[in-house]
Amino acid sequence: MDLPTIARQTARVLISYLTYEAVRTVVAQLAETDPPLAIWLNSYSSTSNIQDGEAYLEALLRERQDLALRVMVVREHLAETVVEHLPEMVQTGIRQANMERRRQHLERLTQIPDAASAGRSELESPPEPQP
Amino acid sequence: MDLPTIARQTARVLISYLTYEAVRTVVAQLAETDPPLAIWLNSYSSTSNIQDGEAYLEALLRERQDLALRVMVVREHLAETVVEHLPEMVQTGIRQANMERRRQHLERLTQIPDAASAGRSELESPPEPQP
Repeated sequence: MDLPTIARQTARVLISYLTYEAVRTVVAQLAETDPPLAIWLNSYSSTSNIQDGEAYLEALLRERQDLALRVMVVREHLAETVVEHLPEMVQTGIRQANMERRRQHLERLTQIPDAASAGRSELESPPEPQP
Repeated sequence: MDLPTIARQTARVLISYLTYEAVRTVVAQLAETDPPLAIWLNSYSSTSNIQDGEAYLEALLRERQDLALRVMVVREHLAETVVEHLPEMVQTGIRQANMERRRQHLERLTQIPDAASAGRSELESPPEPQP
């Protein structure tokens, strides 16, 4: 298992994702202050390749320098505020998701017809009225 | 800026990405010990929707319970070893990328024909021989 490579690759994915979230944030801010510009940035971002955050910013810098610089400031802010909570959220999230996958799988294997709890969680049916 | 929602969404993206890296790791391990099974898992993962990690595992649990449980163990291990380094890697990565974007943009705006350094960094030309 090549952990350093996986870590580097994961950081790259995360940086591109935060760039995408920064663009969404700037679009939402512009929708309040300058709706036509919000529409322009939204449509620009849906046609250009936002999957690669650096290439996207490089292109936006040539089109609308002010917006590109603003996206860069916002993604730096997101990195400073959001990222520090991620390790715990991801570790807890994976542990809980694994438990849930195992629980559902065991339930399927043992086929316990526990209609009361299984039915409620899957169909969101209202609780039985008590007599 | 809705930071809690952005944090939750980012954690979800990260969990799905680590599930994908766990699948790649298991495929690489199987390539050593059981090549036909490695080929099967690789082809299964390229046709099924691995973008949604939970749906992918749910489906794999029905097809090949042993492989799904193994992917789950590996992703938990990745979460414990890789994720703690991410905040610093992402913060440093974004700061450096922002500086690089700004530097390149300034260079373009000022159009300094610095052939010696620009040429070298772009074309990887060898250093001039010293007399």
